[in-house]
Amino acid sequence: MPSEFDLIARHFVRPTPRTVLGPGDDAALLAPSPGAEIAVTTDALVSGIHFLPETDPERLGWKTLAVNLSDLAAMGATPRWALLACVLPDPDEDWLAAFSSGVFACARRYGVDVSGGDTTRGPLSLCVTALGEVPAATALRRDAARAGDELWVSGFLGRAALGLAHRRGEIRLPAEILDACLDRLEKPYPRVELGVALRENALAHAAIDVSDGLLADAGHLAEASRLDVEIDLTRLPEGFPQGFAAAPSLTERFQRGRLSGGDDYELLFSAAPERRDDIDALGARIKLPLSRIGRFVAGAGGVSLRDARGEALPVFYKGFDHFAENIQ
Amino acid sequence: MPSEFDLIARHFVRPTPRTVLGPGDDAALLAPSPGAEIAVTTDALVSGIHFLPETDPERLGWKTLAVNLSDLAAMGATPRWALLACVLPDPDEDWLAAFSSGVFACARRYGVDVSGGDTTRGPLSLCVTALGEVPAATALRRDAARAGDELWVSGFLGRAALGLAHRRGEIRLPAEILDACLDRLEKPYPRVELGVALRENALAHAAIDVSDGLLADAGHLAEASRLDVEIDLTRLPEGFPQGFAAAPSLTERFQRGRLSGGDDYELLFSAAPERRDDIDALGARIKLPLSRIGRFVAGAGGVSLRDARGEALPVFYKGFDHFAENIQ
Repeated sequence: MPSEFDLIARHFVRPTPRTVLGPGDDAALLAPSPGAEIAVTTDALVSGIHFLPETDPERLGWKTLAVNLSDLAAMGATPRWALLACVLPDPDEDWLAAFSSGVFACARRYGVDVSGGDTTRGPLSLCVTALGEVPAATALRRDAARAGDELWVSGFLGRAALGLAHRRGEIRLPAEILDACLDRLEKPYPRVELGVALRENALAHAAIDVSDGLLADAGHLAEASRLDVEIDLTRLPEGFPQGFAAAPSLTERFQRGRLSGGDDYELLFSAAPERRDDIDALGARIKLPLSRIGRFVAGAGGVSLRDARGEALPVFYKGFDHFAENIQ
Repeated sequence: MPSEFDLIARHFVRPTPRTVLGPGDDAALLAPSPGAEIAVTTDALVSGIHFLPETDPERLGWKTLAVNLSDLAAMGATPRWALLACVLPDPDEDWLAAFSSGVFACARRYGVDVSGGDTTRGPLSLCVTALGEVPAATALRRDAARAGDELWVSGFLGRAALGLAHRRGEIRLPAEILDACLDRLEKPYPRVELGVALRENALAHAAIDVSDGLLADAGHLAEASRLDVEIDLTRLPEGFPQGFAAAPSLTERFQRGRLSGGDDYELLFSAAPERRDDIDALGARIKLPLSRIGRFVAGAGGVSLRDARGEALPVFYKGFDHFAENIQ
């Protein structure tokens, strides 16, 4: 059986040009840019909880890193470095080779060095720590939304939730939307370019990534900023391809997924109304739909939904919480 | 059942004075000192592999952070920040309260902010990422030993291995040494003051912490530095209290533990012979025995043991490797 050190050398060590000292010592050494703050986040992905055990390992590798980069994107930070702690059952080298190629594909795409890590035996779980840089005092925090700000979201919501329901065998997605839903679930693209551009151009005040679901994450922004947020249901991005006619049961599930499904890893952010045109121009430049879906008003952390006439609707669905009952 | 957010707020959030933005946002924000490099390390501790499931949770909390601070100490870095990703079965709040009080006791002792983390459900495992600072180009790397350097070790070796054998019921330790062995196993003190002082005073060239066992870790230094290392068996720190008469079977096990037992978290370092007096003085000042146990010579990564007459002895025992057979 290969040793821990062999496995690490074979699968987890690649060049680390931005790292003073990469894998192989007691710690990695990183040289921050002068004047930068370090944004740092850690996420554990557990087999059977965050991913299905039979998930394609290459996609799982991508996603393991991507979800952490999404957190950095939500701060407006430029991702630089990552550490990867893998708890693995008896090692299957084919699985490991595919998994690590997914990790490194994501790392290359976003300019990240995998600077260190740890490999140990146990029930499959994966813990990534990602580090990024942001000029001091410019990060996009959750608590910085202002009354009068508008709420924006990138991309489409609810696709990952449909993909998950399909993978679990709860529904069977039609071919027209299958790949888009599975891709969002299994190979999400963290919105790094968007987060960095929002921060560089001072377009956004507050930001968060949609990992727990729109209502939950909008609520996190509102709560941290001590405001209420009103979401216009009619302004949510549609998400189904033009002309696709979904069955009513699918439409119902999709509506729920858009409000409470996790795992889309889009960015939700607040911006002053005067920046509408600049934000539209940014979306066009980076080829990512940006939808203005609500506004922040005086309040105390509440979330409300409005229909086409501006009437308040009951808020049915909550987001994802690992220790509470989900999708209420 | 308490939510994930309740559990985090109740057990894992304490003041973080050295952190620009602590727990609660997408990422934590850290402000490095001007000119510092960031030393960063991550370790996963898995129930049944790295600790026995019935381990006292307060001691487990301490150890979970301490083993990462030991890696920073081995770089000569000053620990500053940590992130804690917990995978927990159905939460037992008494267990969690004790565990977190152990984590924070260790954090306070070493001046570390717990700046962020993640809590999720699954089979019990704990992943810490610790970050420290070190002035650029001064870290104690593994690859910096020089031919002619002497090999030093702090404290005592082999105690943790005896403690583990006792906890597993393989042996029954006599009362005179029981607490010392269990303390080293379950509540190790990372040698942070030593690592920082060795670096500040340029006393050491290379360093590593003894987590895999003396032979394995001395081998890591030799291999990285492209040298051989010779260890004088007769110079190893004794480790039993003065006058304690161990049974032969215990002595045999202890000898093996000193060479190949992991988990002692002492520092192993190389230094020029001219620094002997300074190192002795440092040990006296910080009240930590420092033993000169060998030397580096030209070679290619080999480890040899010498007896009292300088004769080479066969190297029987290897260190800890999570995927290979252990204690060979």
